[in-house]
Amino acid sequence: MYNYIFLLSLISFGAISGDAKLGQMKSPSCVYCHGTTGEAINSTYPNLDMQNEGYLYSSMKAYQNGERTGPLALMMKAQLQRLNDQDLKDIAAFYANASNNENK
Amino acid sequence: MYNYIFLLSLISFGAISGDAKLGQMKSPSCVYCHGTTGEAINSTYPNLDMQNEGYLYSSMKAYQNGERTGPLALMMKAQLQRLNDQDLKDIAAFYANASNNENK
Repeated sequence: MYNYIFLLSLISFGAISGDAKLGQMKSPSCVYCHGTTGEAINSTYPNLDMQNEGYLYSSMKAYQNGERTGPLALMMKAQLQRLNDQDLKDIAAFYANASNNENK
Repeated sequence: MYNYIFLLSLISFGAISGDAKLGQMKSPSCVYCHGTTGEAINSTYPNLDMQNEGYLYSSMKAYQNGERTGPLALMMKAQLQRLNDQDLKDIAAFYANASNNENK
């Protein structure tokens, strides 16, 4: 099992280089559920603040690609459908550092 | 869009009532990637500490039910396959409060 986990740990999603300021401008619909500081408005939603930027990006890609299913996943896919790769990286950068932004 | 989000916000995953102490005992394989305090060992993995307990539970259920796909999701499904509902609730309680546990 350890070898399996080790191999999976080597999977890379590529370098993430988002602009948090741009991410803030690109996330008007995100804030209805995740707030401006990444604190979810509902305990069934994820908090995003202090989350790893790379994980936030790959999660949004997974929603876009239909790799997550269920009602909330479909809603996320719809919300993200018009965003390109750089948009997702910028939003990931924004929420990964959301507790440090000026809105808190 | 707002009505849609509002309706989705009413979806309930039921009350979560996990035992963090039991969750700690049930999470020996989790710690290889998520640590004992919920801090991921790799930036492509999610941090779990301070995450909403209900969200942690519903995420693990989604992996178990095959609602998340891709290599890492398959690994998660395999890791979770022998755990029952109460196990997942206990593990959710453990990681949602992991920064307060004695191991930190």
